Amino acid sequence: MSIKNQKEKTKNWFESLRDQICVSFEGIENDLTGVNSELNPGSFKKTKWYRDDDPSKGGGTMAIMKGRVFEKVGVNISTVYGEFSPEFAKQMPGADKDPRFWASGISLVAHMHNPKIPAVHMNTRHIVTTKNWFGGGADLNAALPNDLDTKDFKTALKNCCDRHNDSYYERYKKWCDEYFYIPHRNCARGEGGVFYDQLNSGSWDADFSFTQDIGRSFNDIYPSLVRRHMNKKWTEEEREKLLYYRGLYAEFNLVYDRGTAFGLKTGGNVDAILMSLPPHAKWK
Amino acid sequence: MSIKNQKEKTKNWFESLRDQICVSFEGIENDLTGVNSELNPGSFKKTKWYRDDDPSKGGGTMAIMKGRVFEKVGVNISTVYGEFSPEFAKQMPGADKDPRFWASGISLVAHMHNPKIPAVHMNTRHIVTTKNWFGGGADLNAALPNDLDTKDFKTALKNCCDRHNDSYYERYKKWCDEYFYIPHRNCARGEGGVFYDQLNSGSWDADFSFTQDIGRSFNDIYPSLVRRHMNKKWTEEEREKLLYYRGLYAEFNLVYDRGTAFGLKTGGNVDAILMSLPPHAKWK
Repeated sequence: MSIKNQKEKTKNWFESLRDQICVSFEGIENDLTGVNSELNPGSFKKTKWYRDDDPSKGGGTMAIMKGRVFEKVGVNISTVYGEFSPEFAKQMPGADKDPRFWASGISLVAHMHNPKIPAVHMNTRHIVTTKNWFGGGADLNAALPNDLDTKDFKTALKNCCDRHNDSYYERYKKWCDEYFYIPHRNCARGEGGVFYDQLNSGSWDADFSFTQDIGRSFNDIYPSLVRRHMNKKWTEEEREKLLYYRGLYAEFNLVYDRGTAFGLKTGGNVDAILMSLPPHAKWK
Repeated sequence: MSIKNQKEKTKNWFESLRDQICVSFEGIENDLTGVNSELNPGSFKKTKWYRDDDPSKGGGTMAIMKGRVFEKVGVNISTVYGEFSPEFAKQMPGADKDPRFWASGISLVAHMHNPKIPAVHMNTRHIVTTKNWFGGGADLNAALPNDLDTKDFKTALKNCCDRHNDSYYERYKKWCDEYFYIPHRNCARGEGGVFYDQLNSGSWDADFSFTQDIGRSFNDIYPSLVRRHMNKKWTEEEREKLLYYRGLYAEFNLVYDRGTAFGLKTGGNVDAILMSLPPHAKWK
């Protein structure tokens, strides 16, 4: 398949996955019967943006919902291209001699009203420089960790990995644990999941298929965890724990997250990049 | 004066300034008659820490007050010494060939309940590698900027600078505006003030005297701004503006602040370093 066709395929997939997830999350909003069910269900608002406000450099669409179950969820897609800055090009595979790049991806972060529902992050991307690779992952971020949720989430990702390569799960689980670690706090950001980068196995089709499967598996398992807890009551104390947990989450994203750095350094849309920040957080 | 005596003098000064500021801020807590005056006045709680939990590497004392005027204020002092990591040594003046350092300073951040009272930051420090210099500054951070506060704060700092060197204010005001700028948001963190670094004019006594004067001038002007507004009522809408403003403040500190990076990279106490983070913040 030509690179042009590959780019077209991944771009369309991220858009289609975004649509599937939005439908799934709006369905959850509609089905709430517990706390906040007197409010109107939320729906996604979409906003387009262009890199450096210049359509010739690509751009993306933010889809943000501030609902009654989802306090704030962003499901953003973007397809950007052009040249890396000389400094940034040095750090990117295959860009040291030729700074041109093309990158498309989907990025999702959900922060929930109910502290019993874990927050979640999912992101997958296809990047083309003189090299061509996929990356992504998904990780669970509970203020009140729950063994069953953690087990079900990880099992779903393990099953997904196992369908593609026996070695993936152990590697990508470990990578996730290492990536989402906060050295200055000496703790993990959350419960983990999978994380992979620079995936180029030699078969573009296999790598794309795996990347699609991560997205589908996410959209299978996470809504089921939300539905498990969404109608449960919570206490003021549990909500406070959520707010302090989100402080930690914001610290990770602002100090360490590579996607945030990538976005800020390539002139991405700031609101889209920082949609991952919690709507409301506390620090001690 | 020997370097040993210089170190002793600055260390003692930062401790004495801390004491003066704590008295001044506790006095404000006692004098509240407006909203929250039914609560008990706050007082500072002090906690000692050692770098890498090793007293031979120095350490510091956090003084934190969670009061009824001051939602959260930290007045931290520290005196740390040892060797910079090889990577960090490259970035520090005079440390590329000899990584040994000694650093003492005071660092203050105040976040207020009342959105009409600006938040504030003040920090001064004395650093010794194979070189020997002072740095510091103070800047005002209002969620609801007020021309009179900004003018009075800047005038106090200008008067301080002018007592020492005619060129200081223009230079340090500009440095402050440049330092506390948030490129990704294309805006300033706050109203500005002064910022200086690597100050070694040739007269250690003059530089120390200037650094002391910055601390005293701060402790003259900021309490008067707090007292100007502390008994005024505020609206829910004004409080919301404060919370969103604090999101921006947290972004700056986590993404750009050099003091935060210095602390995290030299094994400082995380709670002391991150005391600057707001007690409570929101993002859109």
